[in-house]
Amino acid sequence: MPAAAEERLAEYARVWASRGIRAWGEGWWTMPMTVGDQIGRIVGAPPGSVVMHQNVTVAEAIVLSCFDLRGERNRIVYEEPNFPSVRYLHQAQAARGAEIVVCPDDAGVVEALDERTLLVPISHVLFRNGEIQDVEAIVRRAHEVGALVLLDAYQSAGIVPLDVAALDVDFAVGGSVKWLCGGPGAAWLYVRPDLAERLEPTYVGWQAHARPFAFEPELEYAKGAARFLTGTPNVPALYAATPGYDLIEEIGVERIRESSLRQTELLIRLADEAGFEVGSPRDPACRGGTVTVRVPEFEAVHRELGERGILCDFRPDAGLRLGPHYYNSDEELVFAMEQIAEILETGAYERHLGAVARF
Amino acid sequence: MPAAAEERLAEYARVWASRGIRAWGEGWWTMPMTVGDQIGRIVGAPPGSVVMHQNVTVAEAIVLSCFDLRGERNRIVYEEPNFPSVRYLHQAQAARGAEIVVCPDDAGVVEALDERTLLVPISHVLFRNGEIQDVEAIVRRAHEVGALVLLDAYQSAGIVPLDVAALDVDFAVGGSVKWLCGGPGAAWLYVRPDLAERLEPTYVGWQAHARPFAFEPELEYAKGAARFLTGTPNVPALYAATPGYDLIEEIGVERIRESSLRQTELLIRLADEAGFEVGSPRDPACRGGTVTVRVPEFEAVHRELGERGILCDFRPDAGLRLGPHYYNSDEELVFAMEQIAEILETGAYERHLGAVARF
Repeated sequence: MPAAAEERLAEYARVWASRGIRAWGEGWWTMPMTVGDQIGRIVGAPPGSVVMHQNVTVAEAIVLSCFDLRGERNRIVYEEPNFPSVRYLHQAQAARGAEIVVCPDDAGVVEALDERTLLVPISHVLFRNGEIQDVEAIVRRAHEVGALVLLDAYQSAGIVPLDVAALDVDFAVGGSVKWLCGGPGAAWLYVRPDLAERLEPTYVGWQAHARPFAFEPELEYAKGAARFLTGTPNVPALYAATPGYDLIEEIGVERIRESSLRQTELLIRLADEAGFEVGSPRDPACRGGTVTVRVPEFEAVHRELGERGILCDFRPDAGLRLGPHYYNSDEELVFAMEQIAEILETGAYERHLGAVARF
Repeated sequence: MPAAAEERLAEYARVWASRGIRAWGEGWWTMPMTVGDQIGRIVGAPPGSVVMHQNVTVAEAIVLSCFDLRGERNRIVYEEPNFPSVRYLHQAQAARGAEIVVCPDDAGVVEALDERTLLVPISHVLFRNGEIQDVEAIVRRAHEVGALVLLDAYQSAGIVPLDVAALDVDFAVGGSVKWLCGGPGAAWLYVRPDLAERLEPTYVGWQAHARPFAFEPELEYAKGAARFLTGTPNVPALYAATPGYDLIEEIGVERIRESSLRQTELLIRLADEAGFEVGSPRDPACRGGTVTVRVPEFEAVHRELGERGILCDFRPDAGLRLGPHYYNSDEELVFAMEQIAEILETGAYERHLGAVARF
């Protein structure tokens, strides 16, 4: 947690207590747009093209709500390694008429695209092993056949340079429980400005209205990405999230990436020396911010690490995920790898075997 | 703001800073269900039948996502006085094939229902004038013709006794920026338990999965209302919201209603004495927690009241909305009405004429 987040949460309480209902006219109502603009500066999106939602799944559901899935162009083509939450969302669109096509990897996605393709939900960086995907090739092919690309940048924004406008993706999403260090409840949705002018989401609320406080009887869509909003904004989560974004902006993603590449290189070298299997790409051009290390009984090792105060996570079929950020020192990484080796050698992990480790 | 909300927000920061990723296994992940169960105790819903969302519009969009709107039964019949945000949402379903039928009032809704009706979104208490709607008559007729009732209890939960199970509504929603005193970002969705077992929302994420942390490739719906969840939960907003619910539970809605009826009666008497037009029902059985007072230039009067530290709000075509809650004294109400009279007599409102008052 960024230290300033505590102060921001206290500020939320102060404003709530002292301004009450007046706070809505003093910045609360516009937070999904103003905070979205801050994210825009980090991911290369112009002002007015990014809005905030509770999570990525809600953001993607609003994108899906723009489309009739019963026409000729009804295919959703996605990568199997996408994050499960959005995979479930896309699978569920079959009930609305979509044909779901699942590809093993980014190259497979390029091959699968044709004139029947409506939407192409892909990941910038894979959550399992931190592999960077070939977004350019997918966007090029998608636009050739008239399909729209929805980029999930949850695992890249804040650690890998990202310019959604230069990539020419049609939509992009991400959240803050990762490199942006903003905590839960603060996900972002970018909509390409020309698309935002003509698409009409059917999952829509008063924040998407051109004049919300006129309480007009009929829906008239707002201009820009604001029409992709729903009801009352998520004020406390947005207060808590911005200190993390401030730090990313202050340091700059280019500098963070430089340090990240050096530290993930170090982790790979240490893993090699310890004889651990590395699941993440060795080519720095293909590697995001995470190094996946596959050791025996990694779920139990993860639990023992946690009890020793070393925080990383793991994913089934992937291994331990070590994701150093700008605030981690090289010494911490060396210590973590030494501890993993020690836990394996001494069998300290054994008492956790069979425990249900869900997180 | 309940005083304890400040402490809860500080606690969120402490847990985030000290437990980090481990907090997910220590209560964060299940908050949409555990907090939902607390709401359930206030609105008469059994455990496991209420889940939390960012706002009511998102909650209702998930309900709508369960249905194919292109069949014979494709009518959404709603009341014109429903809150605009959900009116816009329901109107937008026309693009998905729904036939939208708008009725002037609750009696009109009963008349309009027939075998073509799929969903009946109604309000328990109207936001404009605080009028209680005849929910029983609508539910009876809706169920006769096989339609489902979606009750918006935003303006009733916490001030008017509500038992969603006894009312036999199919869905109910509400938020916390009103009588529940929980602030923004914390809306609730009740789903009738037998419906929750068979409906399959297409607007769905990993919190709706039977085993979210298995990261399984295929969607398998969770049991109960949990299948109406989306992605990562809105932890900070839920921390901030529960102190308000604690107070409602501690005092009890029956006692709050007793005091509310006495105070709204007092407001009506004071308005009559001052010669102000009262827009809310005089029959206590039909009156929610709000008294609408229509005075000349009420938007400018509202602004002057705000500058004098008297917080109420107004709605276009309705007037000033005075909503005393359990923490307001009779003296405050007398003072507010005296101030309104004084502002009108002295013309103190005139300097605000023409100002854009959006909130």
